[in-house]
Amino acid sequence: MGLLEETIAAIGALDEGAREAAGRRQLRLTKPPGSLGRLEDLAAQVAAIQGRALPEVRRKAIVTMAGDHGVVAEGVAPYPQEVTTQMVANFVAGGAGVNVLARCARARVVVVDMGVAGDVARSRGLLRHKVRRGTRNLAQEPALTREEARQAMEEGIRVLQRLARSGVDLVGIGDMGIGNTTPSSAITAVMSGRPVIEVTGRGTGLDDAALAHKVTVIERALDLHRPDPEDPLGVLAAVGGLEIGGLAGVILGAAALRLPVVLDGFITGAAALLAVAWAPAAQPYLIASHRSAEPGHAAALEHLGLQPLLDLGLRLGEGTGAALGLMLVEAAVRLLREMATFAEAGVSGPVEGGG
Amino acid sequence: MGLLEETIAAIGALDEGAREAAGRRQLRLTKPPGSLGRLEDLAAQVAAIQGRALPEVRRKAIVTMAGDHGVVAEGVAPYPQEVTTQMVANFVAGGAGVNVLARCARARVVVVDMGVAGDVARSRGLLRHKVRRGTRNLAQEPALTREEARQAMEEGIRVLQRLARSGVDLVGIGDMGIGNTTPSSAITAVMSGRPVIEVTGRGTGLDDAALAHKVTVIERALDLHRPDPEDPLGVLAAVGGLEIGGLAGVILGAAALRLPVVLDGFITGAAALLAVAWAPAAQPYLIASHRSAEPGHAAALEHLGLQPLLDLGLRLGEGTGAALGLMLVEAAVRLLREMATFAEAGVSGPVEGGG
Repeated sequence: MGLLEETIAAIGALDEGAREAAGRRQLRLTKPPGSLGRLEDLAAQVAAIQGRALPEVRRKAIVTMAGDHGVVAEGVAPYPQEVTTQMVANFVAGGAGVNVLARCARARVVVVDMGVAGDVARSRGLLRHKVRRGTRNLAQEPALTREEARQAMEEGIRVLQRLARSGVDLVGIGDMGIGNTTPSSAITAVMSGRPVIEVTGRGTGLDDAALAHKVTVIERALDLHRPDPEDPLGVLAAVGGLEIGGLAGVILGAAALRLPVVLDGFITGAAALLAVAWAPAAQPYLIASHRSAEPGHAAALEHLGLQPLLDLGLRLGEGTGAALGLMLVEAAVRLLREMATFAEAGVSGPVEGGG
Repeated sequence: MGLLEETIAAIGALDEGAREAAGRRQLRLTKPPGSLGRLEDLAAQVAAIQGRALPEVRRKAIVTMAGDHGVVAEGVAPYPQEVTTQMVANFVAGGAGVNVLARCARARVVVVDMGVAGDVARSRGLLRHKVRRGTRNLAQEPALTREEARQAMEEGIRVLQRLARSGVDLVGIGDMGIGNTTPSSAITAVMSGRPVIEVTGRGTGLDDAALAHKVTVIERALDLHRPDPEDPLGVLAAVGGLEIGGLAGVILGAAALRLPVVLDGFITGAAALLAVAWAPAAQPYLIASHRSAEPGHAAALEHLGLQPLLDLGLRLGEGTGAALGLMLVEAAVRLLREMATFAEAGVSGPVEGGG
């Protein structure tokens, strides 16, 4: 049994006893029952994931995985491929959007080269798990071999295991890869069964003609490869990408170690579709931070059965939405842990038959 | 001219030049144009409020104002009135929901006794601006005299001025007062012109019969007082409350000193309706943190022309939603300030005619 199969086998059910205990504690806190809305549900979910009535968040990290995409040769992205490599350097230097929001959330950003085409300078802030220099052009041939696809996922599992060993107990995930909305739309179409045109958007800023071309490229690729939604590894091999496979691995690794995973936008949604197809038991470990402006994301979230916490029109990726989500998860957990109970604060409860 | 009139006269227009300069800087930051969605609008709003292209947030505070309501004699709230006093002690001790979320947001909580019925122990963490021990029963007589209503607003202005002198540059507002959804529904009905039944909800947890009774109490009070929406001071005097008037004063004081004000839920929405009726120029200084589960809040936000940042089913008040809003405002401002530009990071821009 390989690392992938071992990891999937290790994913357990959530602890419903801990969830119920968290709910009982909420009723004793100094507030009307249910008045913290979805923050109460979030705290209960983290309790059930961690398997304790009083969950805790101590170390937060955002894993931002980068990879390149051969399909950019088809003209599906308005930025040149070199931007992926340049943005990795920007992440390492702390100047990107995800770095700023991670500082706000007091989370570490872990940048991973899963398959950038260019050369990225070695740096303490960069993990090197490069499977190959970008995927092949999915419009012409499979983006990855099955072996490369598996390797991407297993590298993702290893990254998560390393973070967990360093004490990280809450993980957000994000992506960087010029052209990566194209494989994400392809994956979302295959896994959700929706038409390509419904789940394909402007990415970083295509005009109408370029969007129509992108839809045609994806439709032709799916006709060429005929990926089977029952075979997620085959789907990943057919359309890529390396960062998407790596993020799916992070999700599976986190679920196996009972860590909540906060998704970002459309690309992490595609990774989650693959992860949950492999291992349906991973779904309850997921938290959707936001609904992206990219139209396929709503379809992915619906298929995953997740309701986003935020809807702010973000479409940057990198883990920016996930960083905001980490703040809300930590807030929810701290409310459950730190609020005084009625008894502790000497506050009266509701009047009998009151109103 | 009194403090109220002086403050209103001092409210200036937003700096549209600063807003445009912030927008131009967004285009130079290392991200696709517009990809940070509403966070870009928020940063531009703060730039226009502060009157500088590069806005800054250094000290955050949440002003939580407390007051009691004579209308609880009509059985419109499921908790006993003593809970207002007990919760003030809980705020001062740091055990309430707003305290936990303020710690998450690294904001100070400023608790203000505007008109609690009981005795609150003196404490460093409590500002005493008590106008009277609770309002009169609005179902029987005007809740406040016009002079008391004016005094409540002016105390609110003084609280804000004191915070601004201590360096606070971003303010969230919140409320505590058993029974205060009743005056808030009355104010919202009068100021928005909507029927009472549309803007009245279960508050901290009324059942169907108690909700119907609450609607009747408010309808009869409005028939009795016939408050004129063109006379906001008269509306506040008719139905109260002291914390609502104080919060309206905080809003006016903040706008006069060019500080953004982050609203919480339904009660702060009612305060904003009064403040903006007095001084329409205060509206652009407002930021709506969330949409409360209390049904009248959506009507108040619509009348104010504000779109909430969050929709998490919160209905606790205290400033809990405002604390989450402070985090998002600070994040938006820090993105504008701290992200690297394309030139600084050596990142390529979009391809000419790309896609």
